[in-house]
Amino acid sequence: MSTPAPFQATLNPSLKSWIDSANDPASDFPIQNLPFGVFSNDANPARRAGVAIGEWIVDLAALEQAGLLKTPNVFGKPRLNDFIALGRDAWREVRIALSGLLAHDNPTLRDDAALRQRALVPQSNATLHLPVEIPGYTDFYSSKEHATNVGCMFRDPKNALLPNWSEMPIGYNGRASSVIVSGTPVRRPNGQIKLPNDERPVFSACRKLDIELEMGFIVGAGNALGDPIACNDAEQHIFGMVLLNDWSARDIQQWEYVPLGPFNSKGFATTISPWIVTLDALEPFRTATPPQEPQPLAYLRHDGDHAFDIELEVTLRPEGASKATRISRTNFKLMYWSMAQQLAHHTVAGCNTRVGDLMGSGTISGPTPDSCGSLLESTWNGQRPLALDEGGERGFIEDGDELTLAGWCQGDGYRIGFGQCAGQILAARSAAAE
Amino acid sequence: MSTPAPFQATLNPSLKSWIDSANDPASDFPIQNLPFGVFSNDANPARRAGVAIGEWIVDLAALEQAGLLKTPNVFGKPRLNDFIALGRDAWREVRIALSGLLAHDNPTLRDDAALRQRALVPQSNATLHLPVEIPGYTDFYSSKEHATNVGCMFRDPKNALLPNWSEMPIGYNGRASSVIVSGTPVRRPNGQIKLPNDERPVFSACRKLDIELEMGFIVGAGNALGDPIACNDAEQHIFGMVLLNDWSARDIQQWEYVPLGPFNSKGFATTISPWIVTLDALEPFRTATPPQEPQPLAYLRHDGDHAFDIELEVTLRPEGASKATRISRTNFKLMYWSMAQQLAHHTVAGCNTRVGDLMGSGTISGPTPDSCGSLLESTWNGQRPLALDEGGERGFIEDGDELTLAGWCQGDGYRIGFGQCAGQILAARSAAAE
Repeated sequence: MSTPAPFQATLNPSLKSWIDSANDPASDFPIQNLPFGVFSNDANPARRAGVAIGEWIVDLAALEQAGLLKTPNVFGKPRLNDFIALGRDAWREVRIALSGLLAHDNPTLRDDAALRQRALVPQSNATLHLPVEIPGYTDFYSSKEHATNVGCMFRDPKNALLPNWSEMPIGYNGRASSVIVSGTPVRRPNGQIKLPNDERPVFSACRKLDIELEMGFIVGAGNALGDPIACNDAEQHIFGMVLLNDWSARDIQQWEYVPLGPFNSKGFATTISPWIVTLDALEPFRTATPPQEPQPLAYLRHDGDHAFDIELEVTLRPEGASKATRISRTNFKLMYWSMAQQLAHHTVAGCNTRVGDLMGSGTISGPTPDSCGSLLESTWNGQRPLALDEGGERGFIEDGDELTLAGWCQGDGYRIGFGQCAGQILAARSAAAE
Repeated sequence: MSTPAPFQATLNPSLKSWIDSANDPASDFPIQNLPFGVFSNDANPARRAGVAIGEWIVDLAALEQAGLLKTPNVFGKPRLNDFIALGRDAWREVRIALSGLLAHDNPTLRDDAALRQRALVPQSNATLHLPVEIPGYTDFYSSKEHATNVGCMFRDPKNALLPNWSEMPIGYNGRASSVIVSGTPVRRPNGQIKLPNDERPVFSACRKLDIELEMGFIVGAGNALGDPIACNDAEQHIFGMVLLNDWSARDIQQWEYVPLGPFNSKGFATTISPWIVTLDALEPFRTATPPQEPQPLAYLRHDGDHAFDIELEVTLRPEGASKATRISRTNFKLMYWSMAQQLAHHTVAGCNTRVGDLMGSGTISGPTPDSCGSLLESTWNGQRPLALDEGGERGFIEDGDELTLAGWCQGDGYRIGFGQCAGQILAARSAAAE
């Protein structure tokens, strides 16, 4: 694995599909993207693998059955893990086969009405599911601006960035069981909150409910226990990326997190977008990470560029509002530590990773309040509420609010989009038990 | 689930088996225990479920095939999860059926040589495997003595116990992928270490490798996202218990753990014992938890006794030594927070749990140095090395050392034992890359 294989799967930016909606420059899903997900529909409630193209889903199980893919029956499954486990050559073969079948001048699927009927499902008629079984979820903390902001508020403004932060991609184990797919409602959590003037905590619904705008990557090839992944090899272990909202209960977090880190304040829900965009699709948007000073230790050094230029935004729509307000706009390329460095660090002591593991970037914040990835930061712990476009304001999230992350790479006349990562907040369960 | 079902599965303490070795008062596995595990042997390398009895394993897949158990083909699997998912009534039915088949006066298996040949495997000929697929691993921190000791060393002796500690069972998400079964060697981890007089960290093999003597429980019935488990119901969700060694790299831990908790310092390996002892087998050893002051918030209150009187010890055997030295002796009943409180707290904000989830107690330390569950504590960070019985001393663990946890409940003329939880340390991988 020490020499990366030559890159084989970037698709021509001018390639068009016979599916018209894929050629719309504003579509998240042109033929250059081809992200993988799991879906079902009324006509066929079985969960199976699909690829998004324009406003449609290509049913990969149907193509596999029709003999148009060479994969060994991996797509008629409720999770992508069996496909992902086949490895990068298989991902690329499928990607190339699909781009062929969907290209404007290829008649195989285009001109076969019966096959099209079986193999194409409108996204508007489909339900999207969690695309992978996630054996482990790790969340990093790799935005310098975010770590500095949180350090100012939760600890000491004079020493906001701790000394270890600049030496390693700080991360912690998250809770994999509560990772949910976009669209799943999120119930406001109850928990212990310690108010500043009280001697003891109270049991209460969270009063400082927040988002964390993150991206996540899905491990495509794990490593054995005791066998670290070298930084220069790490991207070969990554299948693709999703948007990730690491919902956070700030008041519960502040009381519980010392000394072992966040627990109930994060474990109630983490939302990911349903489509996994492959690293191959992102390749044209590769760019440099910010300068790293001090130079990292050798196991964290890599050659070439390892950031990706992905535009990100967050919107908030109050219940019943006709319009959402944009509350953040930032870019993934600002992250200090790369995904490759995160994976190298995660495994350097010998920890094994597995196919389908989810690794969150940590909150992605830029240098200005309107580029912060959490309300904690953009409202400075609720002290400077954000005005909403249709009136009202928000310090933190209220019941009924729908929060939506979006992300895309802007190409010349097309974009590689991630779709949406959305969730609406339900009122807390009655805390009468306390 | 609000009213616990009447207890049905405590076996008569005077019951004897026709398997002689089970009647030895020093055996960990009398007929009153019947712990579940997964094994294979040379004659049949397929992993399958078994129950320990004296020096033997009862092959549950063989009994199931012979029609002697009513379970629906759950035992011929490499993990116990399908069996555990059947729920408590099924666990008890199997327990009662087995105690019948193994009772001294029951001829069904005793007098059927062909069936005995298929259904009984000597432990000495078997390989034991990880008994469950573990979807999530959580580690608590519920020994007051341990939390106080660590607080003294890592933070401030004057405020060693943080104010949140007495209000909730503090816990964090561990790494499930690196949970291994007793007997698996453990490679000393490499990682970042910050020496006191250096400006920057170095990359090095861990120099302060340690154990954490813990017990773990296995979740037998999970809860849905958003649907907490009440404290009085929590034990109904627990299948059983194991010994757990949460190997810890103290030097890596001290540098990395602020602010998000331990990560690489723990993620390289966690060893559990292969036999899961059911709560039913432990029932006669139920006792009171230490007094809790202040009184916990309502969601953490439960009726009755929720500790278990389990004797624990740790031994260290240097490579080549003929004899192991006992380095700790303590008891699980000292734990401040109960398993029921841990599970209620884990789920109170809505986090879901799943069949097979592993929850560690946290290091179990008593009030004296010889009852500490880690070398960090018993040697006070290496400053007061322990003398070994055959000469030499240990501040922390050296390469080649084998560390073994053992645990048992002492009954009148019998004991409910946990077997062993052991691991030998291999030298670190070359750190030459740095």
